[in-house]
Amino acid sequence: MKIIKEVEEASIKRSVDSGTEEQRKAVKKIIASVREKGDDSLKEYTEKFDGVTIEELKVSEVEIADAFAEMDTGMIKVIQEAADNIRDFHEKQKQSSWFTTRPDGTMLGQKLTPLDSVGVYVPGGTAAYPSSVLMNVLPAKVAGVGRITMVSPPGKDGKLSAGVLVAAKIAGVEEIYKVGGAQAVAALAYGTESISPVDKITGPGNIFVALAKREVFGDVDIDMIAGPSEIVVLADGSQHADEIAADLLSQAEHDALASAVLVTTSEELAEEVSREVERQLSTLPREEIARRSINDYGAIYVTEDLEKAVDLVNNLAPEHLEILTADPFETMAGIRHAGAIFLGRYSSEPVGDYFAGPNHVLPTNGTARFSSPLNVDEFMKKSSIISYSEKALRENGDKIAAFARLEGLEAHARAVEIRFNKRG
Amino acid sequence: MKIIKEVEEASIKRSVDSGTEEQRKAVKKIIASVREKGDDSLKEYTEKFDGVTIEELKVSEVEIADAFAEMDTGMIKVIQEAADNIRDFHEKQKQSSWFTTRPDGTMLGQKLTPLDSVGVYVPGGTAAYPSSVLMNVLPAKVAGVGRITMVSPPGKDGKLSAGVLVAAKIAGVEEIYKVGGAQAVAALAYGTESISPVDKITGPGNIFVALAKREVFGDVDIDMIAGPSEIVVLADGSQHADEIAADLLSQAEHDALASAVLVTTSEELAEEVSREVERQLSTLPREEIARRSINDYGAIYVTEDLEKAVDLVNNLAPEHLEILTADPFETMAGIRHAGAIFLGRYSSEPVGDYFAGPNHVLPTNGTARFSSPLNVDEFMKKSSIISYSEKALRENGDKIAAFARLEGLEAHARAVEIRFNKRG
Repeated sequence: MKIIKEVEEASIKRSVDSGTEEQRKAVKKIIASVREKGDDSLKEYTEKFDGVTIEELKVSEVEIADAFAEMDTGMIKVIQEAADNIRDFHEKQKQSSWFTTRPDGTMLGQKLTPLDSVGVYVPGGTAAYPSSVLMNVLPAKVAGVGRITMVSPPGKDGKLSAGVLVAAKIAGVEEIYKVGGAQAVAALAYGTESISPVDKITGPGNIFVALAKREVFGDVDIDMIAGPSEIVVLADGSQHADEIAADLLSQAEHDALASAVLVTTSEELAEEVSREVERQLSTLPREEIARRSINDYGAIYVTEDLEKAVDLVNNLAPEHLEILTADPFETMAGIRHAGAIFLGRYSSEPVGDYFAGPNHVLPTNGTARFSSPLNVDEFMKKSSIISYSEKALRENGDKIAAFARLEGLEAHARAVEIRFNKRG
Repeated sequence: MKIIKEVEEASIKRSVDSGTEEQRKAVKKIIASVREKGDDSLKEYTEKFDGVTIEELKVSEVEIADAFAEMDTGMIKVIQEAADNIRDFHEKQKQSSWFTTRPDGTMLGQKLTPLDSVGVYVPGGTAAYPSSVLMNVLPAKVAGVGRITMVSPPGKDGKLSAGVLVAAKIAGVEEIYKVGGAQAVAALAYGTESISPVDKITGPGNIFVALAKREVFGDVDIDMIAGPSEIVVLADGSQHADEIAADLLSQAEHDALASAVLVTTSEELAEEVSREVERQLSTLPREEIARRSINDYGAIYVTEDLEKAVDLVNNLAPEHLEILTADPFETMAGIRHAGAIFLGRYSSEPVGDYFAGPNHVLPTNGTARFSSPLNVDEFMKKSSIISYSEKALRENGDKIAAFARLEGLEAHARAVEIRFNKRG
């Protein structure tokens, strides 16, 4: 890995694929077709893009039972335990409705209501991750969303992967449909004969899925468009180079566009990690992907002191941050921008990908400056509550009317005054 | 107003202006120019679009002092009191960082951090509302945002309105710049010699501002694009027709595209309100605007019973909802979708526009199904915290590695295992 010294600013931003004009046109056409022809259109596109004829879009109970039979019992228990941990953590995020009163009879508050319905997109093929099913579905479930629909493109055999079906069942998804791509997004947004429309669509997908989500946004809500994965390890000189190298590679193996970065105060550690990365790389099944990621978007920054290292991390605003310093909690206090923060030697990043409980859907590409991990708040909405008593309005009505007139809105002022000054 | 009976479904969605190809090109050109030429470009566009030459973009202390001198002392006190109410309400929204521990040494948590910087756009001319300044700035202030920058297009006299400056000062804005349009959004997103870049841009604006916000989204965060105002009044037969009519007109006077709707169980009240709207309309200074709104987007729906009325309101998902029934709190329990809910006769909608405390930036056009009023959460972001002990990783490491291998991610599994299985 390249080692860079005396750096003041750095970035892990990569250019986001925003699609070609042709792709955007194709997506618009697909959406229009699904709105017009419903299920027929979904089946046509599935034949065209996934190369398989689907009679019944909805996954049957038999298919789900088959998935459980296919999977190792020990593995099912692991998924179950991970789901329990994720549910526990997200339950702590759940906000309550609240209100406040004043002696004059004023009552103000905030009412929280779960969304009526959510659609979760799950990619097909090797990107059909059971962990992503848990991470997208469970926050919605904890929020109390009434109806959670899942869509995913079928394989050539006309099926979804066992892992995805098991995870979906464990997470509590009730409706699963074998359809993917822009056509699935259109079905979730506008409904077909089989698929009822939802209020929000979440989950990752390819460029067609991303463009379709952008296209339907406004009619329904969407989650953020996730970019390639990133890890930054912040380490002082007392740390284990082999473990740091392994953690860097765990993100690098995701994607050739992934970014793995070490920020350290120790030149010696920098050299050691660089050697370890090279050594471990050559033993990985996904060596080629990981190597491209390390070469193109990997870096080791050596800083003068820990303060400068923390500044650089805030500058990078990474998706995942590992803090490996003498006192990780003290170091964390200075971190302003990071999606998830892993503290100490035994909090290797994959702990968070699968098992600990916090969400693995995290802000990428520097957006941790202003974005959060996927969380329960995103599946609930707030309504403000305002209840004024006669006394409260009598005491404040003139002020409200004056403010309205300052803004030239006479009817606003009169709406308040008519309560007390009746005509005739 | 038109009275409609036996309705099952209704909508107040209006088509959103998403701009022409020409407008989008113009906005892109403006943004590119500001990124290249900085302040010079801002001044050029201000000359071109606002018809005024600005030497110094930043509003001076003298200009702010002049604004206070120009404004009536009583009015300043009203703005101050409104600001206090808004600050109080939003302080109750503020979430805290939290953590949880397990006996095995696991510590999980969520760290909340305010955004570093926010830019607030304030429209010029008659839409320069001091109340909007308070509503956009104060949630950011309460969140603890470090730097809040305001931009607004100057009038022909090269100044901003006294009301806007007074409200900005009271809300605690420290930097105000006399620049508007897409050029101001570009300056906030990418910075110029005078204006430092921000992490999030909020506030309403014309189509050029909206397109510019969409364009810079991703590099910075933006708030929702607000549509024209809406009010739905839900009333049983015991209510005052003149007051309801006044409340409907208070929203209708905003915009010819505004929508004012009554949903009632009483045919008699429907007739009365219809007559009252007509009577009051003819006395309003903004009669023409209000009349177009009432004719094009106003309606009175008469339902069989209160349950059907509540269903219809949820169907409409209005920005503002007034509940005028025998027991408004009981009725509220059935409401799932509304931006702000006003309970009872003395909670006329303008109470919330100016004074009570809850935010007046609310979801429009049916988006209350999945969106919330502007709130403190939108100016803070979350970071997940994961700290595993040696014991916790030893006990769960195999499960995590198994899950990783299920997904074909070998380097993830090894990152965990290397903590315990050293080579050599």
